Amino acid sequence: MRNLSDSTAISLKQVIIQDDFWSPYISLVRDVVVPYQWEALNDRIEGTEPSRAIRNFKIAAGLEQGEFYGMVFQDSDVSKWLEAVGYLLALQPDRELENIADEVIEIIAKAQHEDGYLNTYFTLKEPDGRWTNLAECHELYCAGHLIEAAVAYSSATGKRLLLDVACKLADCIDEAFGPEEGKIKGYDGHQEIELALMKLYRATGQDKYLRLAKFFLDERGKLPHFYDEEYDRRDGATHFKSLRMSKDKSYSQAHLPVRLQQTAEGHAVRVVYMLSGMADVAAVTGDESLLQACRTLWHNIVSKRMYITGAIGSMAHGESFTLDYDLPSDTAYAETCASIGLIFFAQRMLRIRPISEYADIMERALYNTVIGGMSRDGKHFFYVNPLEVWPEGNAKNKNFEHVKAERQRWFGCACCPPNIARLIASLGSYIYSVKENTAYVHLYIGSQVQFELADRKIQLVQHSELPWEGNIRFEVLPQQAARFTLALRIPEWSKVPEISVNGQWIEISDEQRKDGYVHLDREWLPGDIVHLVLPMTTRFMKGNPLIRETIGKVSLQRGPMVYCLEEADNGPHLHRMIIEPDGQSQSSFDDSLLGGLQTISVPAYRIRDEGWKDKLYQANVDVRLEPATARFIPYFAWANRGAGEMRVWISEKWH
Amino acid sequence: MRNLSDSTAISLKQVIIQDDFWSPYISLVRDVVVPYQWEALNDRIEGTEPSRAIRNFKIAAGLEQGEFYGMVFQDSDVSKWLEAVGYLLALQPDRELENIADEVIEIIAKAQHEDGYLNTYFTLKEPDGRWTNLAECHELYCAGHLIEAAVAYSSATGKRLLLDVACKLADCIDEAFGPEEGKIKGYDGHQEIELALMKLYRATGQDKYLRLAKFFLDERGKLPHFYDEEYDRRDGATHFKSLRMSKDKSYSQAHLPVRLQQTAEGHAVRVVYMLSGMADVAAVTGDESLLQACRTLWHNIVSKRMYITGAIGSMAHGESFTLDYDLPSDTAYAETCASIGLIFFAQRMLRIRPISEYADIMERALYNTVIGGMSRDGKHFFYVNPLEVWPEGNAKNKNFEHVKAERQRWFGCACCPPNIARLIASLGSYIYSVKENTAYVHLYIGSQVQFELADRKIQLVQHSELPWEGNIRFEVLPQQAARFTLALRIPEWSKVPEISVNGQWIEISDEQRKDGYVHLDREWLPGDIVHLVLPMTTRFMKGNPLIRETIGKVSLQRGPMVYCLEEADNGPHLHRMIIEPDGQSQSSFDDSLLGGLQTISVPAYRIRDEGWKDKLYQANVDVRLEPATARFIPYFAWANRGAGEMRVWISEKWH
Repeated sequence: MRNLSDSTAISLKQVIIQDDFWSPYISLVRDVVVPYQWEALNDRIEGTEPSRAIRNFKIAAGLEQGEFYGMVFQDSDVSKWLEAVGYLLALQPDRELENIADEVIEIIAKAQHEDGYLNTYFTLKEPDGRWTNLAECHELYCAGHLIEAAVAYSSATGKRLLLDVACKLADCIDEAFGPEEGKIKGYDGHQEIELALMKLYRATGQDKYLRLAKFFLDERGKLPHFYDEEYDRRDGATHFKSLRMSKDKSYSQAHLPVRLQQTAEGHAVRVVYMLSGMADVAAVTGDESLLQACRTLWHNIVSKRMYITGAIGSMAHGESFTLDYDLPSDTAYAETCASIGLIFFAQRMLRIRPISEYADIMERALYNTVIGGMSRDGKHFFYVNPLEVWPEGNAKNKNFEHVKAERQRWFGCACCPPNIARLIASLGSYIYSVKENTAYVHLYIGSQVQFELADRKIQLVQHSELPWEGNIRFEVLPQQAARFTLALRIPEWSKVPEISVNGQWIEISDEQRKDGYVHLDREWLPGDIVHLVLPMTTRFMKGNPLIRETIGKVSLQRGPMVYCLEEADNGPHLHRMIIEPDGQSQSSFDDSLLGGLQTISVPAYRIRDEGWKDKLYQANVDVRLEPATARFIPYFAWANRGAGEMRVWISEKWH
Repeated sequence: MRNLSDSTAISLKQVIIQDDFWSPYISLVRDVVVPYQWEALNDRIEGTEPSRAIRNFKIAAGLEQGEFYGMVFQDSDVSKWLEAVGYLLALQPDRELENIADEVIEIIAKAQHEDGYLNTYFTLKEPDGRWTNLAECHELYCAGHLIEAAVAYSSATGKRLLLDVACKLADCIDEAFGPEEGKIKGYDGHQEIELALMKLYRATGQDKYLRLAKFFLDERGKLPHFYDEEYDRRDGATHFKSLRMSKDKSYSQAHLPVRLQQTAEGHAVRVVYMLSGMADVAAVTGDESLLQACRTLWHNIVSKRMYITGAIGSMAHGESFTLDYDLPSDTAYAETCASIGLIFFAQRMLRIRPISEYADIMERALYNTVIGGMSRDGKHFFYVNPLEVWPEGNAKNKNFEHVKAERQRWFGCACCPPNIARLIASLGSYIYSVKENTAYVHLYIGSQVQFELADRKIQLVQHSELPWEGNIRFEVLPQQAARFTLALRIPEWSKVPEISVNGQWIEISDEQRKDGYVHLDREWLPGDIVHLVLPMTTRFMKGNPLIRETIGKVSLQRGPMVYCLEEADNGPHLHRMIIEPDGQSQSSFDDSLLGGLQTISVPAYRIRDEGWKDKLYQANVDVRLEPATARFIPYFAWANRGAGEMRVWISEKWH
C-alpha cells in the first residue's frame, strides 16, 4: 500500500488557538454550547422537544426502566457531544467536564452487549432486528459516531474505556460484515462508519478496520442491490413511511458503485461523509480509482452544485442535491451538517495533496454556513441556511416549510448543533498540515503549532487579523536553524499577496507559487518573522450564467466573508434594492453591532412604487428608482435581531 | 327581495358564435374533446389511469357488478361532461350525441335512491355514511355538478328526466340540511352546490333552492365549527390521510363567515366557486353585505393574488392561494379549473353591475390560462399552468413535482379537461348581457345574438378580428327602429378606442364612458353599422414592485394575449435573455406556426458565458452581452412542440 498522507496529520494537541475571532467561539463551545447540549441530551431545556438520548442509554444499560424515545439515530447525539468534549479536553483539562463524560461512558459501556453490539434503538425496540435494515436504520452510522467519540476522547485523556467499547463494537461489525462467506455484504444507508473506521485504524494501527472501511465503500451500489435484497428479506417492512431510503438508491449514493459516480446525488450530508471516508481510504491505500472518484465528485460539487456560502443541498425533499446549476436561494436546504461534512472532505483532500482550492472551500463553508448555523449566544441553531428569507411569505407558502427565519433552540432531529460544537472544538486540526519537508498553512487563524520537520522541533506562532483584515504575522521558532518550506495559502479572495521575511519584502516568483500556495524555502532561524498581507477589498461576486437564480444579481464578499442585506438595516422589500456595482463601496468595523462586525455600504437604488396603488400589472411604466444605500453585514451574523427579510444575491443595475 | 340581475341573462341559445379564433375551438370541443372524454369516462383511452366514472353509475344502478373506483368525487366528471353535451346541443342538434347522453341519464336515474339521494361513492362504498363527512367527501359538490348538467341539458333539449333527477336530489338535500330543527347545519368542503342551486332556482323558479343556497353560504365558518363537530361525531375518522380538509378551515374558506373574509385563502377553485354562488345569491336577494364580500375578495384576488395570465393559486400544497404579491412563476399552481372558476365569478359580477374590469379579467383568464390548459389537438391538458418551466430542473427538483412541461392525456383527478369543455361549449353566454335599456358587449368574439330590449326584438351581428387585431364591426338589426344603448367594453389593453357609426367617426364624450364601457345611446335602425377599432400594440408589462418574482422583469402582452419565450424559438437558458424595452418590437402573423399565431420579435441580449468554464462564482467580472432577438409566441400556445424551457417574465435591461 502506498500511503499518500500519513505524514501530514497535525493533531489537535499540537495547536493552541489564540485568535480574536475564533477564541471566543471556542470559549462559547466550552462555556455554553457543550453545557447547553448536555442539558438538552438530559431533557432539561424547557419548551423544546426532549432528546432522551442519555436516558435511552441508561435504559439499555439496565439502570432505568422505560422505553426508547426519539429517532433511530438518537444515540449519535450523545456520541457527537462526547467527541466535542474530547476535543475540548485536548485543548485544556477540565476535571468536572471529564467526570461527567466518564459517567456517560460508564453508562454506554454498560449498554454494550456481550458480543460488542451497541445501539439503544435495536436493544430496546427491535432486539431481533439487528442488521436487518441497513438502508434505513443508521446502525453503522451510530457506531461510526461512537467510534469518532472514542478516538477523540482517548486521544485527549489517555483513557481506554470508550476506545475499548469502540473496538469491541467495530470487531462485532467486522464479525457481521465482510467478503467472507456467511457475512453480510451490505452497508449503511447513511455513510459515517467508513471515515470512523479510518480514525480507529489510525488510532489503533489495526488493518482490519481499514479493510472493513474499504469493504463498505466497495460494496456500495453493487448489483444485485443489497437494499432490495434486505427489503425482500424483511418482506417489505420499512422503518420510515417513505420508501425513499430503500428504493431510491441515489438518495444514499447507492445507485452506482462509488468509483463510477460522476455527480453528487441525493442526501448532501451522506455524500460528503462518504467522500471523506473515500479520501481516507484512498490516502492510505493509494487506490487511484477511489481518489479519482473523490476528485470528480469534489469538482462536481464545488463547480456546479454549491452555494456561494459553501452550503450544499438545493432541495428540502431528501435534503438533497438536485442538478447542476440549480441553486435557488429561498428554497435552499443548505444544511449546516452538509457544510461541516464538506469541510471534513476538504481537509482529507488537503492531506492527500495541498491544493488551495480545498482550503478555499473549507474556509468558505466555515466562515459562512457553519458559524451562521449558530447564534452568537450559542443556544440557537439553524438546520437550514437559506440565502434569501421573506418571513411572512415563508410562513404562508409551504414550499418554504423547512426554512426558519430565526434560529431554533433544539431539534427533534438534532444532528446540526453537536456537529457545530465538535467542529469548532477541533478547529485547531484544520489550520496546518505537514507533508514531507513542507509546513502548510491552510487557514489564517491566530494560533501556535508545534511539529517536527527536518528532524527539528519547530514552533510556529500565527497572528491574524482575519476575517476582517488580511494582515498575518508568523514567528518561526525552530529549536535550532532548520531548512524547510513554509507554504502559505493564497486565498481565492486575494490573489496578489505581499510577503516580507524579517522586514524584507520579497518578490514572489512563479516557482514559489504552486497549487495556490507560496512556498518559502529557506533556512529558518529562531525568531524569523514572516509578514503576509492579503489585500482585502469588497468584491462584487457574480454567479455562473448557467445559474438561473443569480442572473442579473450580485453578491458581496470581503475576505472569506459573504455578505447579506437584512431588513433590520435596510427596511423591508429587499427585492426592490438594486446595487450600483460601479459605485464606491465603503467598509467599516462596527464595534457595537452584534459583538463587532465589518459592515459594507454600497450605493444603491430602491424601486419606487408610486403610481401603482392597487394595480397588479401595468403597461409601459418606467421603473422609478430612488437613490439609497445598501448596508451589508456578514452572512453568518444574520437573524440575530429578530425575524426579518434577508438576501445574499441582490439585483444589479446593468451598465 | 331586490333582484339585481334577473334581466341581464342571455341564454346560450340566443347566441351563435362565428369567429375565426373561437369557432374552431367549439368544433374541437364537439368533434374531439367531448368524444375523447366520453372514451375516457368509459376507460377506453390506452395508457392513462382509468376513470370508471360511468361504470360506477352502472354498478350503483344495479346494471353491473363491481366495486366503486376512483376519487370520492368521480361522479362529477360524468356530470361535467353531460353539461358540456347540453351546451353543444343548445348550439346545434346532434341526434347521436343526444342518444348517448340519454343513455347515460337513464343510468344515472336508476342509480338514484328512492328518496332522491344520488352519489355512487356512498351508495357503493359507505351506504351508512351519507352526510357524515361534508368536509372531505364532496357529496354536495357532486350533487351541484349533477344539477348544473341537468339545467344545461333540459334547457338544450327540453327533456325533463335529468332535471327531475336533479330536483329530487336537491329536495333530498333540502330535507337533510337547513335551519329547521333536526336538519344538519353543515355545508360542503368544496363549494359548488351553492351556484348549482341558484341555476336550479332560475330554471324552476322554486324559492326553496335559493333559500338552501343562501343557507349553505350563511352557515359557512360559523362557530362552533361544523367540521369539528362532524369530525368528533365520526370519532376522528377521515377519508383522506391529511387532516387538512377537516382541520385547516381556511383550506375550504370556512375559517370565517363568508361576509367577514377579507382575503382569498386556501384552495383557489373553492374560493371562486364559492364567490360565484355568493354573487348569484346577492344578485337575487339584494344582500348588500354578501355583495360587498364578493367585491372585497374580487379586489383582493385581482389586485394582489393573480398571475398576469389570469391564473390563481400560488402554491401546490392545498392547490392554494398564499399571500398578497406572492406569485412565483415556476412553482405556480395556477390550476386551469381555478381560472375557469374566476370566469364564472366575473360573469356573475358583470351581471350585477357591468364594470369593464370584470370582463377584462374574464378575457385575461380565457385567452391565456384556460385555452392554454388544452393542446391544440383537444386531447392533452394542463392541470397546472406555470409561467416558467425548465424541464430538466423540474424533473429533478421536487419543488416542481406538480409542474409538467407537456400536456397530459388524462388525470386521475380529472377535473380540468371537462371543465374546459363545458366552458368553451357555453362561451356564447359570456359575450353579451342586457340590463334595463342597455345591451352590453363584454367580449369581442364574432357572433350573432338575439335579445329583446325596449320591447323590440333585436339582432346584433358582431365581426371581430380578435385576438390578433382590434377591428370589430357590429350590424345592429332591430326588428324596427329602437332606442336603446349599445355599451361596448373598452378593454384595459386599449384605452383609446375609435368608433364610427354608419361610417361617421364619433368623438367619445366623458359622459359616454362609464364603468369602462362606451355607451352609444341612440335610435338604432335596422342595418346600422358600428365600427370599433381597438389599437393593438405590443405592451411591455411590469409587475407591481411588491411582487418579488417580477422585479427587474418584463412581460409582453398584445391585445388580450400574454406572450412567452419558448426554447423552440430561442434556444435554451431563457434566463440569459434580456429584453431591451426601448427597442422596436415587431409583430407579425405566422400562418405556419401551430395553426397560425401572431408572434412578436423584440431586440434583446443574451448573457455570454465565455470566461466562466467550470467556475461557479467570480469577482468583478463584467456581464457580457451579445445582441439577440427574443421571439415571443402567445402563452396559450406554449408546449405544443415538445418539452422545452418557457418563460413569461423576462429580464429587462435597466435604463
